[in-house]
Amino acid sequence: MSQSSRRALRKWGIPKLEYPVTQHLRALLQERLGIDPERRHLEGHEPLPPLPPSQLDEAALQALRQLVGADGLELSDEARARCAAGSTFLDLLQARAGLIGNVPDAVLYPSSEAQLSAILSFCHQETIPVCPVGARSSVTMGVGAPRGGVALDLCRALNRVLEVSPRDHLARVQPGLLGPDYETALASFDLCGGHYPQSFEYSSVGGWIAARGAGQQSTRYGKAEDLLLGLRCVTPTGVVQVAPYERCAMGPDLRQLFAGSEGSLGVLSELSLRVFQRPPCVQPVAFFFKDMEHGVDFVRRWLQEDGIRPAVCRLSDPEETDIALAIDGRAHGFTDKALSKLGYHPGHRVLFIGSCEGDQASARLGALRGTALALRLGGLPLGSHPYRSWEKRRFFDPYLRDALMDRGVLIDTLETTAPWSRLLELWQGVRRSMKARPQTIAMTHISHAYATGANLYFIFISPMQPGAELEDYQSYHSSLLDAIQEYGGALSHHHGVGRLFAPRLAAQLGAGAIRCLKALKAELDPKGIMNPGVLALD
Amino acid sequence: MSQSSRRALRKWGIPKLEYPVTQHLRALLQERLGIDPERRHLEGHEPLPPLPPSQLDEAALQALRQLVGADGLELSDEARARCAAGSTFLDLLQARAGLIGNVPDAVLYPSSEAQLSAILSFCHQETIPVCPVGARSSVTMGVGAPRGGVALDLCRALNRVLEVSPRDHLARVQPGLLGPDYETALASFDLCGGHYPQSFEYSSVGGWIAARGAGQQSTRYGKAEDLLLGLRCVTPTGVVQVAPYERCAMGPDLRQLFAGSEGSLGVLSELSLRVFQRPPCVQPVAFFFKDMEHGVDFVRRWLQEDGIRPAVCRLSDPEETDIALAIDGRAHGFTDKALSKLGYHPGHRVLFIGSCEGDQASARLGALRGTALALRLGGLPLGSHPYRSWEKRRFFDPYLRDALMDRGVLIDTLETTAPWSRLLELWQGVRRSMKARPQTIAMTHISHAYATGANLYFIFISPMQPGAELEDYQSYHSSLLDAIQEYGGALSHHHGVGRLFAPRLAAQLGAGAIRCLKALKAELDPKGIMNPGVLALD
Repeated sequence: MSQSSRRALRKWGIPKLEYPVTQHLRALLQERLGIDPERRHLEGHEPLPPLPPSQLDEAALQALRQLVGADGLELSDEARARCAAGSTFLDLLQARAGLIGNVPDAVLYPSSEAQLSAILSFCHQETIPVCPVGARSSVTMGVGAPRGGVALDLCRALNRVLEVSPRDHLARVQPGLLGPDYETALASFDLCGGHYPQSFEYSSVGGWIAARGAGQQSTRYGKAEDLLLGLRCVTPTGVVQVAPYERCAMGPDLRQLFAGSEGSLGVLSELSLRVFQRPPCVQPVAFFFKDMEHGVDFVRRWLQEDGIRPAVCRLSDPEETDIALAIDGRAHGFTDKALSKLGYHPGHRVLFIGSCEGDQASARLGALRGTALALRLGGLPLGSHPYRSWEKRRFFDPYLRDALMDRGVLIDTLETTAPWSRLLELWQGVRRSMKARPQTIAMTHISHAYATGANLYFIFISPMQPGAELEDYQSYHSSLLDAIQEYGGALSHHHGVGRLFAPRLAAQLGAGAIRCLKALKAELDPKGIMNPGVLALD
Repeated sequence: MSQSSRRALRKWGIPKLEYPVTQHLRALLQERLGIDPERRHLEGHEPLPPLPPSQLDEAALQALRQLVGADGLELSDEARARCAAGSTFLDLLQARAGLIGNVPDAVLYPSSEAQLSAILSFCHQETIPVCPVGARSSVTMGVGAPRGGVALDLCRALNRVLEVSPRDHLARVQPGLLGPDYETALASFDLCGGHYPQSFEYSSVGGWIAARGAGQQSTRYGKAEDLLLGLRCVTPTGVVQVAPYERCAMGPDLRQLFAGSEGSLGVLSELSLRVFQRPPCVQPVAFFFKDMEHGVDFVRRWLQEDGIRPAVCRLSDPEETDIALAIDGRAHGFTDKALSKLGYHPGHRVLFIGSCEGDQASARLGALRGTALALRLGGLPLGSHPYRSWEKRRFFDPYLRDALMDRGVLIDTLETTAPWSRLLELWQGVRRSMKARPQTIAMTHISHAYATGANLYFIFISPMQPGAELEDYQSYHSSLLDAIQEYGGALSHHHGVGRLFAPRLAAQLGAGAIRCLKALKAELDPKGIMNPGVLALD
């Protein structure tokens, strides 16, 4: 598999690392999806097709080279194709089919805010689209250049930790910093960042904030936007900055305007983030509950209780619970039978995995109280094994997608959020839509919870429709979004909007909100050059 | 004292309730300020001066009456004077001097969102200024009509609790609801609102959000803006709404644009707020520390620790600590001597008062850990008396201002916030400016703390300069704001901006931020009719 194969272009993570398709997984594919695991379909081992040449004229290229240096500009097909998309299923599918769209005309690697400012001024003057690119883990088509122009790759040279203040629990960083590098820098101060999304190893701090991401411990540390204390954002018409006061009363809080702006207003050039003491102790818990209602009730009550809230907080619905047991080789075995004897039946039982973090006393007390609550709700304590087993693969599951796609399997996710009172109905409604497709595994979990509500994360796995993979995916995907909106869920809890959900944003937010966003866009980016298509503000 | 005396017009709270000027307080006034406590100055017992007649023509009045009914519009001097100001020191001073400015031409009492919409549409069409009025506790000149027009008094008929959802920990309310009424409604569900500012009894939910207020337990429950889950805002050009998702990733979060907008964009017509389980247990703590450095260190470490954070969290600086002892009659007595013997000397020692709330186990554990930390930092535990004594007068201290003003005393407050690393220097810098005025009591406390920083609340008490009360106040006040800004503090942590700080906002926020705010204002309120002067956006 050459670096420049269609598959390799969008493959997740470490290039040589592949997800092992085990015997249990094979069995599952065969039994549940009717997939022959030896079959290969749309693997995309072909080389990339040649791209259309850059549309930027020599004068523009020359001017840009002067701003970033000769090393700071690339025109190769490889670089341009790389910055044409993130990790959206549709992007992978299209790449494998040899369709590389949304290609920028050049890739720039700015190394300072001054360079960013100069680039944006120049592009504003010349009306050249500008598409910021982080670590390209977007699953909502947030990355790409549908109208050409320049891609700004921020991860090569705008990726430094500028300041760590243990006294202020604050770190000041550049947007292209990757998760592991950030965490390493903080660790030497005995601090941590608290943001560990599944994409942790291949996502950037700027991307976290720009798309309002959520880490797997968000229930304790907050979402990306909750970590944001201050920022600088370079727009086509100047810099906007917000000083890192935790809270103040100086009019509207603009931090929450730039968090979630997804590059549509400008490029975040500097971020001040809240950091935390590194927790010396992690206390795992896990329980079975007899049904979804009891599981959801448990999570809600825990979050509404006083005391230590969980860090990891994951409740799998019955289908996800049973699939997890099956992949683990525990379906139909002793475990399964014992569970059924105890009243935790397949198709009904749900698995909760969580943790409490902090100093030993707090972590243990939190776990103890969580356990006491679980017992009151008929939960079966499972010790620490389920958490440990989840922990081992917490950043590894994204590798599964490439392996399944090789075998002609459609696998994608959607996620939403709602208040508790609407959550079960929303889950059932979307689930019905997922299952309306024959031969479909439809798994749901809660992974981010609040006193007022929670998210729902949907995973759907089904055979592709050979010859009509794209259209089939799009119409199925669209039907699921319909269901999410119909049952009162948000368009996204933490994946963002990108270009994938943008056409639905206006209906979801309402005319008033869209007017506010468009007015801001018109002020900061009057020619609409910033990340065209994202949020559909242009 | 008639209802319509100049003093009564702006007097705090219950009309007949006056602050008792005790023997100890008298002694303090005499010794520290050289004030004769029997002297009276600028009491304002005279009746209100007649106001200029309403500038609205009969056609406009007729149209407005049709929108709100005959009962929903008032033109009396009493009503117009009432809505001409809030509780800013300057407003009180001017009222007592018989200067009633910023008077609206009419006071309206809308009773539904539909009426609000109709009023704003009409006023937009006719370019009539609209000034929302809540419970008038603003201390930053957020209330008033400097360009005339209509005042919208929201507390009479737009003050209902629309929905309480114990399952979602959410309440939906109208903006004119007063603190105690809100709390009573929640109590019947065993819930609480968590927002208890000093003005609790005379402030409205809409005002809390519009000005980003903070309650005395904000360290546990968050500031007003942290309570905000969803909203509806009627603007001159339509309604903007944000659905009450706790967190989502659907572009910028507009809730934080309307929180802190202080009526400059529109009128908040409906608020969805986070609510909490009513804490069955409150565990008070109190300590002396040997100096400000140790006290600040204690608060910082407690907030940066794992475990239960305090609800009330107040650290008085040495001067405030000594004044508190003096007012309590404990200066120079046994307590004072004993404290000094133990190394807690006057002029250095600082008093911390706090509480932990929740179920008994959590509250007690929190207090225990706070105490353990205090002991490690040389703190002297004082039992629950200081908290209980603070608790009794937690909503009563605002009454002091009227009593002192009667005696020719200037008494006012300012507040700010900064990261921990800048806090002591900021305190010292502002303190120097406060003390640059002779015969001035200058007290400071921290009352809202975060892992990343804290607020500073300044109280200054000094004799007025007879004959030049206004100019003297303004120049002193301005010198303190200079110091706050020079030492890196925010213009306000929770009092808001109003018209008092508006002239300084642009310098503090920077040109980029002001452009964003003005663009929004231009979109929603293109004729600039909404609360003119506030935030200086017009």
